[in-house]
Amino acid sequence: MNEPVYFDHNATTPIRPEAQAAVIHVLALLGNPSSVHRFGRDIRRHIEDARECVAALVHAEPADVVFTSGGTEANNLALRGVRRDRVLVSAIEHVSVLEACDGLELIPVDENGVVDCTALDEMLAKPGAPPALVSVMFANNETGVVQPVKEISAIAKRHGALVHCDAVQGAGKAKIDITGLGIDLLSLSSHKIGGSQGAGALIAKQDVALEAIIHGGGQERSHRGGTENAPGIAGFGVAAQHAADYANEAARLGGMQQDLENRARAAVPETQIFGERVSRLANTTCLTLPGISSETQVMALDLAGVAVSAGAACSSGKVGTSHVLEAMGVSGAGEAIRVSLGWSNAPSDIARFIDAWAALYKRVLNPA
Amino acid sequence: MNEPVYFDHNATTPIRPEAQAAVIHVLALLGNPSSVHRFGRDIRRHIEDARECVAALVHAEPADVVFTSGGTEANNLALRGVRRDRVLVSAIEHVSVLEACDGLELIPVDENGVVDCTALDEMLAKPGAPPALVSVMFANNETGVVQPVKEISAIAKRHGALVHCDAVQGAGKAKIDITGLGIDLLSLSSHKIGGSQGAGALIAKQDVALEAIIHGGGQERSHRGGTENAPGIAGFGVAAQHAADYANEAARLGGMQQDLENRARAAVPETQIFGERVSRLANTTCLTLPGISSETQVMALDLAGVAVSAGAACSSGKVGTSHVLEAMGVSGAGEAIRVSLGWSNAPSDIARFIDAWAALYKRVLNPA
Repeated sequence: MNEPVYFDHNATTPIRPEAQAAVIHVLALLGNPSSVHRFGRDIRRHIEDARECVAALVHAEPADVVFTSGGTEANNLALRGVRRDRVLVSAIEHVSVLEACDGLELIPVDENGVVDCTALDEMLAKPGAPPALVSVMFANNETGVVQPVKEISAIAKRHGALVHCDAVQGAGKAKIDITGLGIDLLSLSSHKIGGSQGAGALIAKQDVALEAIIHGGGQERSHRGGTENAPGIAGFGVAAQHAADYANEAARLGGMQQDLENRARAAVPETQIFGERVSRLANTTCLTLPGISSETQVMALDLAGVAVSAGAACSSGKVGTSHVLEAMGVSGAGEAIRVSLGWSNAPSDIARFIDAWAALYKRVLNPA
Repeated sequence: MNEPVYFDHNATTPIRPEAQAAVIHVLALLGNPSSVHRFGRDIRRHIEDARECVAALVHAEPADVVFTSGGTEANNLALRGVRRDRVLVSAIEHVSVLEACDGLELIPVDENGVVDCTALDEMLAKPGAPPALVSVMFANNETGVVQPVKEISAIAKRHGALVHCDAVQGAGKAKIDITGLGIDLLSLSSHKIGGSQGAGALIAKQDVALEAIIHGGGQERSHRGGTENAPGIAGFGVAAQHAADYANEAARLGGMQQDLENRARAAVPETQIFGERVSRLANTTCLTLPGISSETQVMALDLAGVAVSAGAACSSGKVGTSHVLEAMGVSGAGEAIRVSLGWSNAPSDIARFIDAWAALYKRVLNPA
């Protein structure tokens, strides 16, 4: 059998060789970055180098970077750390935002999966409401739909609200300028951009009051206690350098995405591609195979050596109904799969997917 | 110049080659452990294997293990996750316990650095007080003094209190039997036992109600959201296997510790060794050089190629007064350093420390 094809980059990416080398290099070093002696100082330097690379990726200052254990912790830190009494999040956020705190107010999305800015404006205009935090992702992890973050920030600012943006899925595939977008807090994950698991960052503008959710030790400007994951952070820095070349990568992936979608539609004329009429990431396609459940598709494709997912990777190992597609009010959610391309894919991978997927379709048309 | 000598294992240990190999192996694998497809299942297996090794180290069930980003997060999860209205902690706990939540009540220690069980009993007997959580470390990170955890658990149980034990420093140097000690929750850190930074665990008995502090995704029995640090966890598992051979390692380190303390006292007759009259870890010596500040000693020894610390590694890079020695009410805290041995040390390292330290002492006796 051929090597399996990995089309699940939104769940996790293979580590880039350069990032892998950085992790391995720092893993062999010795020292607690907070130690005063030479060992401590040497390893500290790797963390500070990575801080510069991660900051540069989103046009932030190195001092804005708070390293965390990953995107989920970064989202939790943003939502609870700013201590706003009112938190508005879009209905299609990742569970690490939706479950980060109680009492969230959900901003609706339209049938294309785009956040409804008019609704947000009305929600924020509520008289007498306390200052809010608004959290809207850069691009959705299931559909790839890019959100109007700049417009959202402008609305939020008019109402005195802070803005958090979960950019875990956008980084490396689109330009992310934290200042240009008017964002106060932004989440990143290393393993979604070619780094290792176990590292992430909350980029927090220094004028934002942020309380830690993990206390002790005073690391990360007292925003995140605990000895830093120095090897993971070093790899994150190198991955961030590569992710800064988003334009070339988006062009390459976009060509493959177009090819995949054209061939999918040719093979299965009644397929739906969610969000196709709006701006999407160049790597993500969420599409249906009418008549076959998401779960069956994922398993059949896995047997055929093609790894895709049904929505977000879920700890239960089960495939549930996507809250994202539900919020969009679309039909066919139970028959949708997510194909997410990435740096490790070659154009020839597309045919492997199409062949396996079309074969499934033929089985539905002509059941044995 | 000779290779520097590393005597700061309580801050972080060098990674054991076997653990390093495990991290590197899993780093090269691809997959989100929550993914349904073959990539996800394969990487999940490494996490579950590590869970068994970590559980075995402390005589727990694999299902009790909640992987975290490290010991600090584990301590935070224990103290806030059990949601007890009353939390009693010893005055010598690590900052990640002391700063984990507000309103802590401090249990005093005696001049040897041992928690005062009578005081704890009286505190818990307070009429009408809500059920408490008691958190006492297995062994102190600065002095190595082993705490009467079994007695503390018995007292706590009599008063209906839960018991958390920060065993970050005890693991690998002493037997830790969570059930035998009567502990409900126990913290471990990978990089303190020869694993990599970025992984740790809270061992939580399954009958303890525990709420997550990082939400989203449902990982770790919904006790800790976020994609697992699979490479770090794999290394943690291998490190835990080695740490299970604590008896041989403690015997080896204890011989070196005895040698170090004998020679230190011969070189500096007026040195104080804190906690020397009570049970201590075989690797930790906290001792004074009268007339020379802790900071000066750390820096001078660093220049001489010997890495030690003054108390816990502190994010500021500065040396503050030790809250541990302060709680013991001892004099000389400002002239104390911590020497912590570990698996990477050889008996010949002792002379390097003694030579450099005695030279410092001679400078005090005969200032230029």
